Amino acid sequence: MSFVRSVIPEFEAANQKYAAQFNKGNLPLPPGRKVAVVACMDARLDPAKALGLEEGDAHVIRNAGGRAIDAVRSLIISQQLLGTREIVIVHHTDCGMLTFSDVEIKAKIRDELKEDAEHIAFLPFGDVKQSVLDDIAIVKKNPLLLDVPVTGYIYDVKTGKIEKVE
Amino acid sequence: MSFVRSVIPEFEAANQKYAAQFNKGNLPLPPGRKVAVVACMDARLDPAKALGLEEGDAHVIRNAGGRAIDAVRSLIISQQLLGTREIVIVHHTDCGMLTFSDVEIKAKIRDELKEDAEHIAFLPFGDVKQSVLDDIAIVKKNPLLLDVPVTGYIYDVKTGKIEKVE
Repeated sequence: MSFVRSVIPEFEAANQKYAAQFNKGNLPLPPGRKVAVVACMDARLDPAKALGLEEGDAHVIRNAGGRAIDAVRSLIISQQLLGTREIVIVHHTDCGMLTFSDVEIKAKIRDELKEDAEHIAFLPFGDVKQSVLDDIAIVKKNPLLLDVPVTGYIYDVKTGKIEKVE
Repeated sequence: MSFVRSVIPEFEAANQKYAAQFNKGNLPLPPGRKVAVVACMDARLDPAKALGLEEGDAHVIRNAGGRAIDAVRSLIISQQLLGTREIVIVHHTDCGMLTFSDVEIKAKIRDELKEDAEHIAFLPFGDVKQSVLDDIAIVKKNPLLLDVPVTGYIYDVKTGKIEKVE
Protein backbone atom coordinates (compact mmCIF):
# COMPACT_ATOMS: atom_id res chain seq x y z
CA MET A 1 0.00 0.00 0.00
CA SER A 2 2.85 2.35 -0.86
CA PHE A 3 0.41 4.85 -2.38
CA VAL A 4 -1.08 5.46 1.06
CA ARG A 5 0.61 8.18 3.07
CA SER A 6 1.09 6.63 6.50
CA VAL A 7 1.24 8.69 9.69
CA ILE A 8 4.15 6.61 10.98
CA PRO A 9 7.08 8.85 9.88
CA GLU A 10 5.28 11.88 11.33
CA PHE A 11 4.43 10.10 14.60
CA GLU A 12 8.03 8.97 15.02
CA ALA A 13 9.46 12.42 14.25
CA ALA A 14 7.02 14.05 16.69
CA ASN A 15 7.92 11.51 19.35
CA GLN A 16 11.65 12.22 18.95
CA LYS A 17 10.96 15.87 19.71
CA TYR A 18 8.74 14.97 22.67
CA ALA A 19 11.30 12.57 24.15
CA ALA A 20 14.14 15.07 23.66
CA GLN A 21 12.54 17.45 26.16
CA PHE A 22 10.85 14.80 28.33
CA ASN A 23 11.34 15.37 32.06
CA LYS A 24 8.58 13.28 33.62
CA GLY A 25 10.35 9.94 33.94
CA ASN A 26 9.72 9.49 37.66
CA LEU A 27 5.94 9.63 37.89
CA PRO A 28 4.20 6.97 39.99
CA LEU A 29 1.83 4.47 38.35
CA PRO A 30 -1.37 5.55 40.22
CA PRO A 31 -2.96 8.75 38.85
CA GLY A 32 -1.94 11.72 41.00
CA ARG A 33 -5.36 13.37 40.90
CA LYS A 34 -7.20 10.12 41.61
CA VAL A 35 -9.64 10.59 38.75
CA ALA A 36 -10.71 8.55 35.74
CA VAL A 37 -11.99 10.50 32.74
CA VAL A 38 -14.31 8.71 30.28
CA ALA A 39 -14.42 10.64 26.99
CA CYS A 40 -15.31 10.21 23.34
CA MET A 41 -12.56 9.19 20.90
CA ASP A 42 -13.45 12.19 18.68
CA ALA A 43 -10.44 13.74 16.98
CA ARG A 44 -11.48 17.29 17.86
CA LEU A 45 -11.50 16.61 21.61
CA ASP A 46 -8.17 16.57 23.47
CA PRO A 47 -9.18 15.73 27.07
CA ALA A 48 -5.76 16.62 28.47
CA LYS A 49 -5.78 20.10 26.93
CA ALA A 50 -9.49 20.71 27.54
CA LEU A 51 -9.32 19.73 31.24
CA GLY A 52 -5.78 20.81 32.09
CA LEU A 53 -4.28 17.34 32.60
CA GLU A 54 -0.55 16.84 32.85
CA GLU A 55 1.19 13.50 32.48
CA GLY A 56 0.59 11.52 35.68
CA ASP A 57 -2.70 13.18 36.62
CA ALA A 58 -5.57 10.98 35.45
CA HIS A 59 -6.67 7.82 33.72
CA VAL A 60 -8.20 8.71 30.38
CA ILE A 61 -10.55 6.12 28.92
CA ARG A 62 -11.84 6.86 25.43
CA ASN A 63 -14.18 5.11 23.04
CA ALA A 64 -16.78 5.90 20.38
CA GLY A 65 -19.22 8.18 22.19
CA GLY A 66 -17.42 8.05 25.54
CA ARG A 67 -19.90 5.37 26.57
CA ALA A 68 -19.64 4.25 30.20
CA ILE A 69 -20.85 0.70 29.61
CA ASP A 70 -17.85 0.19 27.33
CA ALA A 71 -15.52 1.55 30.05
CA VAL A 72 -16.54 -0.67 32.96
CA ARG A 73 -13.57 -3.05 32.76
CA SER A 74 -11.15 -0.12 32.70
CA LEU A 75 -12.96 1.73 35.51
CA ILE A 76 -12.87 -1.33 37.78
CA ILE A 77 -9.11 -1.67 37.21
CA SER A 78 -8.68 2.09 37.74
CA GLN A 79 -10.49 1.96 41.09
CA GLN A 80 -9.48 -1.45 42.45
CA LEU A 81 -5.82 -1.47 41.47
CA LEU A 82 -4.85 2.16 40.95
CA GLY A 83 -6.88 4.07 43.52
CA THR A 84 -8.99 6.51 41.50
CA ARG A 85 -11.93 7.85 43.48
CA GLU A 86 -13.75 10.15 41.07
CA ILE A 87 -15.21 9.76 37.56
CA VAL A 88 -15.70 12.47 34.93
CA ILE A 89 -17.66 11.68 31.75
CA VAL A 90 -17.22 13.87 28.64
CA HIS A 91 -19.45 13.62 25.57
CA HIS A 92 -19.55 16.40 22.96
CA THR A 93 -21.57 18.34 20.41
CA ASP A 94 -21.66 17.18 16.76
CA CYS A 95 -20.79 13.61 17.84
CA GLY A 96 -20.64 10.90 15.19
CA MET A 97 -22.82 8.79 17.48
CA LEU A 98 -25.74 11.11 16.66
CA THR A 99 -25.54 10.26 12.96
CA PHE A 100 -26.52 6.59 12.74
CA SER A 101 -28.60 3.84 14.29
CA ASP A 102 -27.52 0.39 15.37
CA VAL A 103 -29.65 -1.06 12.56
CA GLU A 104 -28.03 1.21 9.96
CA ILE A 105 -24.40 0.42 10.82
CA LYS A 106 -25.15 -3.30 10.90
CA ALA A 107 -26.74 -3.03 7.44
CA LYS A 108 -23.69 -1.10 6.17
CA ILE A 109 -21.36 -3.80 7.51
CA ARG A 110 -23.48 -6.50 5.89
CA ASP A 111 -23.49 -4.63 2.56
CA GLU A 112 -19.85 -3.56 2.46
CA LEU A 113 -17.98 -6.23 4.39
CA LYS A 114 -20.39 -9.13 3.85
CA GLU A 115 -20.13 -9.76 7.59
CA ASP A 116 -22.60 -10.08 10.44
CA ALA A 117 -22.16 -7.65 13.35
CA GLU A 118 -25.36 -8.55 15.16
CA HIS A 119 -23.38 -9.45 18.30
CA ILE A 120 -22.10 -5.88 18.76
CA ALA A 121 -24.07 -3.05 20.39
CA PHE A 122 -22.67 0.07 18.71
CA LEU A 123 -24.21 2.37 21.37
CA PRO A 124 -25.24 5.38 19.23
CA PHE A 125 -27.49 8.02 20.79
CA GLY A 126 -30.04 10.62 19.71
CA ASP A 127 -29.37 13.31 22.32
CA VAL A 128 -26.02 14.26 23.86
CA LYS A 129 -27.40 15.50 27.18
CA GLN A 130 -29.41 12.31 27.60
CA SER A 131 -26.39 10.14 26.74
CA VAL A 132 -24.39 11.84 29.51
CA LEU A 133 -27.24 11.36 32.01
CA ASP A 134 -27.61 7.73 30.95
CA ASP A 135 -23.88 7.13 31.41
CA ILE A 136 -23.78 8.79 34.83
CA ALA A 137 -26.63 6.45 35.84
CA ILE A 138 -24.83 3.39 34.42
CA VAL A 139 -21.74 4.17 36.49
CA LYS A 140 -23.69 5.00 39.64
CA LYS A 141 -25.77 1.84 39.65
CA ASN A 142 -23.01 -0.62 38.72
CA PRO A 143 -22.26 -2.70 41.85
CA LEU A 144 -18.73 -3.39 40.59
CA LEU A 145 -17.90 0.32 40.78
CA LEU A 146 -17.36 2.30 43.99
CA ASP A 147 -19.73 5.00 45.22
CA VAL A 148 -17.59 7.95 44.09
CA PRO A 149 -18.41 11.43 42.74
CA VAL A 150 -19.46 11.26 39.07
CA THR A 151 -19.68 14.43 36.96
CA GLY A 152 -20.80 14.65 33.34
CA TYR A 153 -19.99 17.29 30.75
CA ILE A 154 -20.81 18.17 27.16
CA TYR A 155 -17.76 19.54 25.33
CA ASP A 156 -18.59 22.04 22.59
CA VAL A 157 -16.39 21.40 19.55
CA LYS A 158 -17.10 24.93 18.26
CA THR A 159 -15.94 26.77 21.41
CA GLY A 160 -13.74 24.37 23.38
CA LYS A 161 -16.01 24.87 26.41
CA ILE A 162 -17.35 22.16 28.71
CA GLU A 163 -20.87 22.46 30.13
CA LYS A 164 -21.90 20.44 33.17
CA VAL A 165 -24.90 18.16 32.67
CA GLU A 166 -27.28 18.12 35.62
CA MET B 1 -18.14 13.51 50.75
CA SER B 2 -17.15 17.12 51.38
CA PHE B 3 -13.81 15.95 52.82
CA VAL B 4 -12.74 14.68 49.41
CA ARG B 5 -10.98 17.24 47.23
CA SER B 6 -12.71 16.94 43.86
CA VAL B 7 -10.96 17.73 40.59
CA ILE B 8 -14.03 19.56 39.32
CA PRO B 9 -13.08 23.17 40.24
CA GLU B 10 -9.62 22.61 38.71
CA PHE B 11 -11.02 21.01 35.54
CA GLU B 12 -13.48 23.89 35.07
CA ALA B 13 -10.83 26.55 35.64
CA ALA B 14 -8.46 24.84 33.21
CA ASN B 15 -11.22 24.60 30.63
CA GLN B 16 -11.99 28.31 30.91
CA LYS B 17 -8.38 29.04 30.02
CA TYR B 18 -8.44 26.53 27.15
CA ALA B 19 -11.68 27.90 25.72
CA ALA B 20 -10.45 31.50 26.02
CA GLN B 21 -7.71 30.84 23.46
CA PHE B 22 -9.56 28.18 21.45
CA ASN B 23 -9.32 28.70 17.69
CA LYS B 24 -10.22 25.27 16.30
CA GLY B 25 -13.98 25.62 16.06
CA ASN B 26 -14.27 24.72 12.40
CA LEU B 27 -12.68 21.28 12.25
CA PRO B 28 -14.53 18.55 10.32
CA LEU B 29 -15.86 15.47 12.13
CA PRO B 30 -13.68 12.86 10.31
CA PRO B 31 -10.08 12.68 11.58
CA GLY B 32 -7.79 14.68 9.30
CA ARG B 33 -4.94 12.18 9.42
CA LYS B 34 -7.27 9.19 8.89
CA VAL B 35 -5.80 7.23 11.79
CA ALA B 36 -7.20 5.59 14.92
CA VAL B 37 -4.81 5.29 17.86
CA VAL B 38 -5.51 2.57 20.47
CA ALA B 39 -3.59 3.33 23.66
CA CYS B 40 -3.54 2.50 27.36
CA MET B 41 -5.49 4.74 29.76
CA ASP B 42 -2.31 5.16 31.87
CA ALA B 43 -2.00 8.61 33.42
CA ARG B 44 1.65 8.97 32.41
CA LEU B 45 0.93 8.54 28.70
CA ASP B 46 -0.45 11.51 26.76
CA PRO B 47 -0.92 10.11 23.24
CA ALA B 48 -1.46 13.56 21.70
CA LYS B 49 1.79 14.93 23.10
CA ALA B 50 3.77 11.73 22.56
CA LEU B 51 2.70 11.35 18.90
CA GLY B 52 2.30 15.00 17.92
CA LEU B 53 -1.48 15.03 17.50
CA GLU B 54 -3.40 18.26 17.17
CA GLU B 55 -7.15 18.61 17.63
CA GLY B 56 -8.82 17.15 14.54
CA ASP B 57 -6.03 14.71 13.62
CA ALA B 58 -6.93 11.27 14.96
CA HIS B 59 -9.38 9.12 16.84
CA VAL B 60 -7.86 8.19 20.19
CA ILE B 61 -9.31 5.08 21.82
CA ARG B 62 -8.01 4.33 25.32
CA ASN B 63 -8.68 1.58 27.85
CA ALA B 64 -6.86 -0.38 30.54
CA GLY B 65 -3.88 -1.84 28.69
CA GLY B 66 -4.77 -0.36 25.32
CA ARG B 67 -6.33 -3.73 24.46
CA ALA B 68 -7.54 -4.06 20.87
CA ILE B 69 -10.34 -6.52 21.62
CA ASP B 70 -11.91 -3.85 23.84
CA ALA B 71 -11.63 -1.30 21.03
CA VAL B 72 -13.36 -3.21 18.22
CA ARG B 73 -16.71 -1.39 18.47
CA SER B 74 -14.93 1.96 18.32
CA LEU B 75 -12.60 0.90 15.48
CA ILE B 76 -15.52 -0.28 13.34
CA ILE B 77 -17.26 3.08 13.83
CA SER B 78 -13.98 4.89 13.13
CA GLN B 79 -13.50 3.05 9.83
CA GLN B 80 -17.06 2.61 8.58
CA LEU B 81 -18.47 6.02 9.48
CA LEU B 82 -15.49 8.33 9.80
CA GLY B 83 -13.02 7.08 7.23
CA THR B 84 -9.89 6.15 9.19
CA ARG B 85 -7.57 3.88 7.22
CA GLU B 86 -4.69 3.18 9.61
CA ILE B 87 -4.39 1.83 13.17
CA VAL B 88 -1.63 2.54 15.69
CA ILE B 89 -1.51 0.55 18.96
CA VAL B 90 0.43 1.93 21.95
CA HIS B 91 1.14 -0.10 25.10
CA HIS B 92 3.81 0.99 27.60
CA THR B 93 6.46 -0.02 30.11
CA ASP B 94 5.52 -0.41 33.80
CA CYS B 95 1.86 -1.02 32.85
CA GLY B 96 -0.60 -1.82 35.62
CA MET B 97 -1.81 -4.74 33.48
CA LEU B 98 1.50 -6.50 34.27
CA THR B 99 0.74 -6.51 38.00
CA PHE B 100 -2.27 -8.80 38.40
CA SER B 101 -4.05 -11.85 37.02
CA ASP B 102 -7.67 -12.22 36.06
CA VAL B 103 -8.13 -14.62 39.00
CA GLU B 104 -6.59 -12.14 41.44
CA ILE B 105 -8.73 -9.15 40.51
CA LYS B 106 -11.88 -11.28 40.60
CA ALA B 107 -10.92 -12.50 44.10
CA LYS B 108 -10.28 -8.89 45.20
CA ILE B 109 -13.70 -7.82 43.92
CA ARG B 110 -15.33 -10.76 45.70
CA ASP B 111 -13.51 -9.90 48.96
CA GLU B 112 -13.92 -6.14 48.92
CA LEU B 113 -17.15 -5.50 47.04
CA LYS B 114 -18.90 -8.83 47.75
CA GLU B 115 -19.69 -9.00 44.05
CA ASP B 116 -19.10 -11.52 41.28
CA ALA B 117 -17.09 -10.29 38.26
CA GLU B 118 -16.74 -13.68 36.56
CA HIS B 119 -18.43 -12.32 33.42
CA ILE B 120 -15.65 -9.79 32.78
CA ALA B 121 -12.31 -10.57 31.09
CA PHE B 122 -9.94 -8.02 32.59
CA LEU B 123 -7.28 -8.65 29.89
CA PRO B 124 -4.05 -8.37 31.92
CA PHE B 125 -0.78 -9.48 30.32
CA GLY B 126 2.62 -10.78 31.35
CA ASP B 127 4.78 -9.23 28.63
CA VAL B 128 4.31 -5.85 26.96
CA LYS B 129 5.91 -6.76 23.64
CA GLN B 130 3.72 -9.86 23.38
CA SER B 131 0.59 -7.88 24.27
CA VAL B 132 1.29 -5.50 21.37
CA LEU B 133 1.90 -8.41 18.98
CA ASP B 134 -1.29 -10.10 20.21
CA ASP B 135 -3.30 -6.92 19.66
CA ILE B 136 -1.89 -6.33 16.17
CA ALA B 137 -2.98 -9.89 15.34
CA ILE B 138 -6.45 -9.35 16.84
CA VAL B 139 -6.98 -6.29 14.64
CA LYS B 140 -5.55 -7.90 11.51
CA LYS B 141 -7.67 -11.03 11.71
CA ASN B 142 -10.97 -9.38 12.66
CA PRO B 143 -13.26 -9.62 9.60
CA LEU B 144 -15.23 -6.58 10.80
CA LEU B 145 -12.13 -4.40 10.42
CA LEU B 146 -10.61 -3.27 7.13
CA ASP B 147 -7.24 -4.47 5.84
CA VAL B 148 -5.31 -1.33 6.79
CA PRO B 149 -1.75 -0.68 8.01
CA VAL B 150 -1.40 -1.56 11.71
CA THR B 151 1.65 -0.46 13.69
CA GLY B 152 2.40 -1.26 17.33
CA TYR B 153 4.61 0.62 19.79
CA ILE B 154 5.81 0.35 23.35
CA TYR B 155 5.96 3.74 25.05
CA ASP B 156 8.66 4.05 27.71
CA VAL B 157 7.29 5.97 30.70
CA LYS B 158 10.86 6.73 31.85
CA THR B 159 12.01 8.37 28.61
CA GLY B 160 8.89 9.37 26.68
CA LYS B 161 10.15 7.37 23.70
CA ILE B 162 8.13 5.00 21.55
CA GLU B 163 9.70 1.81 20.22
CA LYS B 164 8.18 -0.04 17.28
CA VAL B 165 7.24 -3.67 17.96
CA GLU B 166 8.03 -6.02 15.08
